[in-house]
Amino acid sequence: MQLLKDRILAEGRVLPGNIVKVDGFLNHQIDVALLSEMAKEFKRRFGDAGVTKVLTVEASGIALGCMTAQEFGVPVLFAKKAKSDNIEGGLYRSEIYSYTYKKHVTLLVSAQWLTADDTVLIVDDFLANGEALRGLLDIIKQAGAKLAGVGIGVEKGFQPGGQALREAGVPLYSLAIIDSVDNGTITFRE
Amino acid sequence: MQLLKDRILAEGRVLPGNIVKVDGFLNHQIDVALLSEMAKEFKRRFGDAGVTKVLTVEASGIALGCMTAQEFGVPVLFAKKAKSDNIEGGLYRSEIYSYTYKKHVTLLVSAQWLTADDTVLIVDDFLANGEALRGLLDIIKQAGAKLAGVGIGVEKGFQPGGQALREAGVPLYSLAIIDSVDNGTITFRE
Repeated sequence: MQLLKDRILAEGRVLPGNIVKVDGFLNHQIDVALLSEMAKEFKRRFGDAGVTKVLTVEASGIALGCMTAQEFGVPVLFAKKAKSDNIEGGLYRSEIYSYTYKKHVTLLVSAQWLTADDTVLIVDDFLANGEALRGLLDIIKQAGAKLAGVGIGVEKGFQPGGQALREAGVPLYSLAIIDSVDNGTITFRE
Repeated sequence: MQLLKDRILAEGRVLPGNIVKVDGFLNHQIDVALLSEMAKEFKRRFGDAGVTKVLTVEASGIALGCMTAQEFGVPVLFAKKAKSDNIEGGLYRSEIYSYTYKKHVTLLVSAQWLTADDTVLIVDDFLANGEALRGLLDIIKQAGAKLAGVGIGVEKGFQPGGQALREAGVPLYSLAIIDSVDNGTITFRE
């Protein structure tokens, strides 16, 4: 998606550790107009899949999840990352490793809001190692729900998550795939 | 806002500890169409205040923050609750007490995205003790930004946050104020 790539080139920065910093428009301060355009791309790709629910994970996935849900006219459901007192029993759980926080976290989704009747579009702002997606796919499986596909904003193509999902046959659509960030220069996959 | 009150009466549940559970449409699974209507209410109230930015706090505030930002045509910025590796220096910080998680957490906002040029509308899904709002107001003060007002989805009127803010002169607009949940019956303020 050229609009997103242009924005990454114009405003993104590469930090040590191959971190691509896009916190001015994607995951801290958020340009909702841009996210709405990204959601339209997901609609073009997955609009015929019979999506009943958008599934994402807190925190930064929620923004793209909301704009996508608006485009599809369905609710968005976000997995929580820790047990809070406000979630009762009846939970799907999946343990993942968070590279951002360097610890294991458990994704939680209330079983009440995801069932075998659902056809789910997963969305997230970033895909790197794919741990969050592995957890969300596991939760969809636990629910017996159908997977429509996975829509990603920015995929870091030099990390293994995307390739593993494609090899597993997951319908994965990343709006921008960064193949390298050598010397701070961002190169996209054609 | 009658639409929200009706939805709370139809689908909300009261759990022990006076927790009002609205996780089917407001803060786990999210009805973005409802949130868009809530955002329109904020626009009616604060539309003339010259808002340049919507500020909220992760995680469940992000959804209402996004829909509100879309309505105002400005970016949304969300405070993060823990230090992650992906936030550099140049941060506003404010320590609050989270009653949900029963521990102190630090709200973090990158100084790059909030300055003295901003006029800020704070939004959040819930207001109870007001700790999150206290932290967000502190951050706005640190930035030297102007406060347009505070827009809340559901205020628990039997907890002290709302009254304290009103007494402090904060322009607070709550779309639904719950005055009591006695015996599991939800009563709204007129």
